[in-house]
Formats: sequence, C-alpha cells, structure tokens
Amino acid sequence: MSKDIGITVSKKENFSEWYTQIVIKAELADYAPVKGLIVLRPYGYSIWESLKSSLDEKLKSTGHENGFLPVLIPESLLSKEADHFAGFNPEVFWVTHSGDAEIGDKLALRPTSETLAYSMYSKWIKSWRDLPLKINFWNTALRAEIKATKPFLRTSEFLWQEGHTVHATREEAEEEVKLILDIYKKTVEEELAIPVITGKKSEKEKFVGAVYTTTMESMMPDGKALQMGTSHFLGQNFSKPFDVKFLDKNNVETFAWQTSWGVSWRLIGALIMVHGDDKGLVLPPRVAPIQVVIVPIYYSDSDKEIVLKKTQEIEQTLKNKIRVRIDARDEWTPGYKFHDWEMKGVPLRIEVGPKDIAKGKMVLVRRDTQKKSDLEFSNTEIGVESILKEIQQNLFERAKLLLKERTKQVSDFDKFKSEIENGMFLETSWCGDQNCEEKMKESTGADIRVIPFDNTKTDAPCVSCKRPGKENVIFARGY
Amino acid sequence: MSKDIGITVSKKENFSEWYTQIVIKAELADYAPVKGLIVLRPYGYSIWESLKSSLDEKLKSTGHENGFLPVLIPESLLSKEADHFAGFNPEVFWVTHSGDAEIGDKLALRPTSETLAYSMYSKWIKSWRDLPLKINFWNTALRAEIKATKPFLRTSEFLWQEGHTVHATREEAEEEVKLILDIYKKTVEEELAIPVITGKKSEKEKFVGAVYTTTMESMMPDGKALQMGTSHFLGQNFSKPFDVKFLDKNNVETFAWQTSWGVSWRLIGALIMVHGDDKGLVLPPRVAPIQVVIVPIYYSDSDKEIVLKKTQEIEQTLKNKIRVRIDARDEWTPGYKFHDWEMKGVPLRIEVGPKDIAKGKMVLVRRDTQKKSDLEFSNTEIGVESILKEIQQNLFERAKLLLKERTKQVSDFDKFKSEIENGMFLETSWCGDQNCEEKMKESTGADIRVIPFDNTKTDAPCVSCKRPGKENVIFARGY
Repeated sequence: MSKDIGITVSKKENFSEWYTQIVIKAELADYAPVKGLIVLRPYGYSIWESLKSSLDEKLKSTGHENGFLPVLIPESLLSKEADHFAGFNPEVFWVTHSGDAEIGDKLALRPTSETLAYSMYSKWIKSWRDLPLKINFWNTALRAEIKATKPFLRTSEFLWQEGHTVHATREEAEEEVKLILDIYKKTVEEELAIPVITGKKSEKEKFVGAVYTTTMESMMPDGKALQMGTSHFLGQNFSKPFDVKFLDKNNVETFAWQTSWGVSWRLIGALIMVHGDDKGLVLPPRVAPIQVVIVPIYYSDSDKEIVLKKTQEIEQTLKNKIRVRIDARDEWTPGYKFHDWEMKGVPLRIEVGPKDIAKGKMVLVRRDTQKKSDLEFSNTEIGVESILKEIQQNLFERAKLLLKERTKQVSDFDKFKSEIENGMFLETSWCGDQNCEEKMKESTGADIRVIPFDNTKTDAPCVSCKRPGKENVIFARGY
Repeated sequence: MSKDIGITVSKKENFSEWYTQIVIKAELADYAPVKGLIVLRPYGYSIWESLKSSLDEKLKSTGHENGFLPVLIPESLLSKEADHFAGFNPEVFWVTHSGDAEIGDKLALRPTSETLAYSMYSKWIKSWRDLPLKINFWNTALRAEIKATKPFLRTSEFLWQEGHTVHATREEAEEEVKLILDIYKKTVEEELAIPVITGKKSEKEKFVGAVYTTTMESMMPDGKALQMGTSHFLGQNFSKPFDVKFLDKNNVETFAWQTSWGVSWRLIGALIMVHGDDKGLVLPPRVAPIQVVIVPIYYSDSDKEIVLKKTQEIEQTLKNKIRVRIDARDEWTPGYKFHDWEMKGVPLRIEVGPKDIAKGKMVLVRRDTQKKSDLEFSNTEIGVESILKEIQQNLFERAKLLLKERTKQVSDFDKFKSEIENGMFLETSWCGDQNCEEKMKESTGADIRVIPFDNTKTDAPCVSCKRPGKENVIFARGY
C-alpha cells in the first residue's frame, strides 16, 4: 500500500488530521457539496445500522415504539416555547419558497422535534388510559453549524434518534429519564467499548427548555470530553404551552410530565477517536460490519483451488454466528488486502495458505494488538468466538485505563489550569454559582461536563471562588 | 363502540372518506400542522418497519448496501441535468436562510437524490474494480404537492427508499432494473397480498431523465390504478453530466451505466384501500405488527385468574414464531376490544373464556372473513399458523379476482369511454404516438399506466386513431 493510501500522519502528533484521514480512507463518509454536510458511505452506514439495531431492540423491549415526524415545522409552532426557540433560532435552516411561490408562515427544518411532537401528542392524549406514551423517532436533525465542522462530531445535518415520552406523574417521568440514560450507557459501554461517566448537566449546560438534563460523557485521546448522549426531564415546561393534558382516574384535568432524549452518529466519531490507531480504524467486534475477514494466500492455480475450498469451509463454520467475509479478489495481493482491512478496522483476520493447510491450522491476526496466533481448523468456531470476545474486552479495558489515567482530583486553581492544558478530566468542588462556572470557562476553556451521580456531595472549597463547595463536578475542555 | 369511534361511511358509498377515516381511526397517521404533511403513529410506522425489513433483506442478499445522503442539495447541482430539473423544479422546497443569514446558492430539499448521489459517485469510482456500485438509501423525499393531498398517497414529504446503482455495461444495468422490479413485485405480492402488473411506462410517463422506466401498477377498489413502484434505466444520461466514469480492464475511460428505483409508503395506502372493509383495516398477516390478539373473557375475579393464566400459556406457545399480544386491559369490555382490534386490522382474534377452557378449546375469529371456528388448545401452534397462511392467501386471491374482473380488452373507443367510467383497466392496442395518448387522456381522463412485459405485440388498430397498433397497453385513471 502506497503512503498516500495509508494514513500519512500519526494519531499522537496530529490528532485532528489523523481523524479526518480515517473517516475518508476507511470509506466511512465523504464531504457533501454543501459545507458542513457529509454523506455516509455503506461501510460507515453499516456501523450506524449495528448501533441502531442494538439500541432499537433495547428501546422496544422497554415498551417504546417508533414513529415518523415530518422535517418541516412552522415558525409559529417552533417559537411556542420561548427559551427553546431562543436557543435554536440562530442555527435553524428556513424554507421560504416552494417552487416559485413564497410560503407564508416560513418553515424550519427540524433542529429537534419537541414542538412538533407535542402539538400532536396534545391531540392524541385525552385520558390516563392513553399514558404513558413512549415514542422514538429515528431521523436526522438539522442545525446550521457556524463553528468549524467535522465529520460525525459537528455537522449541519446528523443522523440520530429522538425519544419523546409523556407520563402521568413526575416520578414516572424521572424514572424514564434514568432508564434511558442507563440504556445509553449499556449500549455505549457494551457495544462501542467506550466507558462513560453519567450525571447531570449544570443549569448553564442543560437543554434549552428542560428542567434538568442528564448526560454521559467520554474521554477522547486528545484529552477533550465528548458528550455521548443526553436524557432530559422536561417537567411540565412543554406540556403547558402545548396543552398536553389528560383526565386522571378521578376525572381531573392534569398537565402531563415529559421527557426527551437522543444519541447521534457522534458515537461513530467517538469510536474512531477512542480505538483507532496509525493503521486506521479499530472496530469493537460487536459493532463491526465485518467481524472476521479471511484472506486466502496462494501463488499458483493448484494452490488456489485448495486454499479457496478451505476458506469456504471456515466461512461456512462461522457464518451462522459471525459476520465473516472471504476476500477472494484476484486483482489485489494479500499484502494489499491486509492493509485494506486494517484500515477498515476489521477485528480479526484469518490467513490461510497451503502451508497452513498442511499443518491443519490457520493464522489469526488481531487488529487491536496486531498479535498473531495459530488456530486448529477443528477449533474454528470456539477459537474465533473467544478471541472476538477478548478483543471486545481488551478495547474496553484500554479505554477505561485512558479515562482513569486522565481523570484527576484537583482543588487548587493553578494546578487546575496546568492539568487542563495536559488534557485532563478534573474532578473538583464547585460552589454552584454560574459566575464561577463562566469564569473558569473564560480562564481555562473548560466547562462543567457533568455533575456525576456518584460522589457529588462535598464541603471542600470551590476551585474558583474558595467559598464552600456544593458538589463535586467534572471540568474538561469539550468537543 | 359508539358510532363516531367506528367508521361512519361505507367503503362502497364514499370510498375517499372511508379511506381517510381508517387512516385516522386505526391510528396509522395524523395530519401534521403543515398542510400536505402527515405524522406516522407507531401502529402505522410498524407496518412500514415490516415492509422495510422484508425489502431490505432482499436488497442486501442481492449485494446492495445502505448509505446516507443529506437532505440539502445546492441548486447548481440539482439543475445539472436539464430535463430532470425542469421536471422537479415546480415542487421543490427551497432553503434560503440559515438563522438570519441568507444562503448564496439556495438549497433544495431532496425531491430525489440522483444529482447528489452521482456527484459523490464520480469521486468514488475510478476503475472497473469499483463496479458495480449498488447503494440504497432509506430516507424521505420532499415534493410540494399542489393537488389535493391524501395520507400515504400524495403528501409533500414521504418515506421511501431510493436505490442508485452504477455498472460497467448497459446489459448489466438493464438486468439490475429488471432484478429490482422483480424484488418489488415479490415483496408486494407476497407481503402485502396485492397483485401487480409489471411493464414499461410510455415515453410521456417515464421518469424525467431516464432512458426508460419500468413500473408495477395495481388496481384499487375504486377502479383507479396506483403506481406501486418504479425502476429506471438511466443509461448514460446522468453519468455524462455528472462525470461518472471508470477505467475499464483495457485502461480505457468509459462512462458508466446507471439505474435508480424506489418504493414509498404509498404501499401502505394501497394496503388500506385493497383489503380494508367497513369495520376498518384488514392487514395481511405477513406485515401485521400484531398478527394475533388474545382477548380474555371473564366476569368474576376467580374466572379472571384462570382465564389470564390460559391466555398466557397460549401466548407462550405462539410467541417464538408469531407476533401475538394479550389484551388484558381491565378498563375496557371484551366487545370494545373486539371492535378496537378489528379497526386495527389484526388478522386473527383468539377468545378465551371459562366455558372455552372447560371444553379444552379456544374460539378463533378471522378478520378477513369474520368467520368463527374452534381450536383445541393442544393444536394451538399448528392451528394458528395454518389459519394465518390461509388468511394471507385469501386476501391475495380476493385482490387477484378484483383485478381480473376489472380488466377488460377493448378496441372500440365508445366502449372504452364507458368502461373507463365503470372503473376498469382497459387493455387495448396503441399506435405508439404520444398525440393519441394525450387525446385519450383529455377525452377520458385515462393514462397509459403500463405497457405490460407480457403480450405486448399486436397488429390490431389503435383505439384512438385506428392506425395499425404498435403494442398492447393498459389504460386506466390513476392516483
């Protein structure tokens, strides 16, 4: 593989350039003609499909159903909840014409669907019998990005899911908020092998229109935090303006309690950053579109026949449980194929040549550690399954180690400043005053990423003002 | 069930009103705040999910992959193929602003993605090694509807899939066009139990930009034809303006051959119209979100316990193979539940009461024929499976009969005129002249819906001009 086909910079030295090279060269995505928009190529999309199917199953098994909302929202509807509108307005794409005709009430492209969904919900919900209503929407959101855009991390249109639920009581709605964050955490940790810290957002960082926002945050290798997903408790902030109310069992009209929540293809961005290396993408087996690639190795026609037959046997043995592909392309050398599948992050490569067949063994090469080992043909299924599990586990352990090494407790402001420069998550005491939060942001570039559910109470002095702290929070610079 | 909860008009007497009442009352969809747009409720969306999963599997098993394209297309790109642009321009939604800022090259909301996809393909395809490229996109298309809109049949945004493929030779591309139409036909006939007639569109009716369009057309009970899906041979009409070319095996630069094809949620509209009756929706088992509903019947607490236990046993027996639900809602009577599930078109209802348990049998009620029968508990699995197959088959046979009864051969113009008024598909000879086609449309309201693949050659005189015919075609009024 020539130098310009492989990644030309190292992850350590030029993280940003390394990232975009992987996106393009692993054929995950490409730039669309409109700035800030990307196209997902089949390889990238199939990672999204894996993730989607895993999350969708969990949502359905907890009583959620899917629906569809149009992308166009009238301005009059979007502006019904004032904070919400003020928050999104600067980044809304507006449709003003259809054909040559001007549209009266101009139409927003969905930046998020609270307003549209709840205008419908208010028609559908009449009685306690109609609750809870738990609908999820797999679609895209559109927010015109002014800052520098980056594939998967910051684009003006992105694939996501947005869930919108309605409950009879505050308690039930708050349980839903927590349930969803748990489902998200489980999905990200088990499927993507990325550890997350869960907790609340500060008032300043919460979703516009929410009572509070819960979040999961992860550590990227450049020391920045990435918000991986959020689950919002909306209280009655939307049910009142949108008239989402019901007759309770005593026939009393009551405003409902609501939640909304979402994760996006940003998770693919996290996957690339956390696990990738200088050879390209490294995919955890559970979301890899191809988990095992078999490369036949031969240099004569007689060998070719024997080797291809053996690779087909291996494929047959594996294919019921494992996503396996034989790379039988005649126009490329084995060496080219190795590099190609390494770039694409396939977790395990199997090599089979005439000598291997003679020995009754295949060669396995792990993508995560690059380690080679032998496996007897008679052990194919068990051997491959167990090594895939090991890879999944190893990637998660490595990522946990990174998070651990880069999370520090600090109480001193100068120490804080220098550790933020080193790309750390800083656990520290905070007085709860938004002024301190803003000052820290100005002087260090760091936000309060999350107020963790665990270990929040403290009486240590606030890192900024030295008044008594209210809670422990995690500061970091973010994406 | 009170009169206003059920359908208040009959299918025969007021087909259009009957249709929209089903859409709303079976909770398939509802009107969005913007005219011409609809929201899909979970029950409607899950029919789309069934259909999608069946089609997606067939596409994947024939080597197609999924991808994602943004919804925004710059005007300069959309207008690159002149016929195509002229065809779509009047119904394009235009984004002119993001936030308060005006956008230079205004952005179209995707009416279809040929132009965007092929501008990407031209970057991705370099050599014969990159072909064929077969990508499908599950998304929505946006076309501002000026005519009267109708849920699923004519809306300004609709769910669909659009496939876009690139091939090295004309022959391979034409085979793809045919393969896809076959997959569509199979899906519609086997899953939706609706027979289709396949063939070509006339020049006048083909997709703007295509060399030719193949189509499948179905008969609706009001005698109008519905276009169920199309598969287009694009030739090199797009590869030339979009520069989709490749180096062939002899290193010669060659323009590629292309196809595009799509089906939409219009198929759900067809499903409603073809199978529904005066009690509501009737769903073919293969796409029914709930195939079997079990209604426990009891009037005392002691009976309740015994009956619920039995219904749970039945559910357990069925649930591995069949989508089954127990309706154990205490707040509704059995009678209300019967009507509710009839409205929603659940193919089979199981009733279990204390007397049934005493006799060792459950009562089955088919949605399609309303017929009741008994089934011994010991035969649950086999009995239910076989009756579901019968229902699927019966719906298809009924629809085939309708199509047969309403398809007539005519050669005489007056006869043609009166039979069109009767809501018939008219098979007739046509000279091939577009003037005759347009005259027929003006005088009878009927289009050439399809030039069937079977039985196309004829020398009978043209129904319009009486000159020698070129081919047999099917005229009908259409949606």
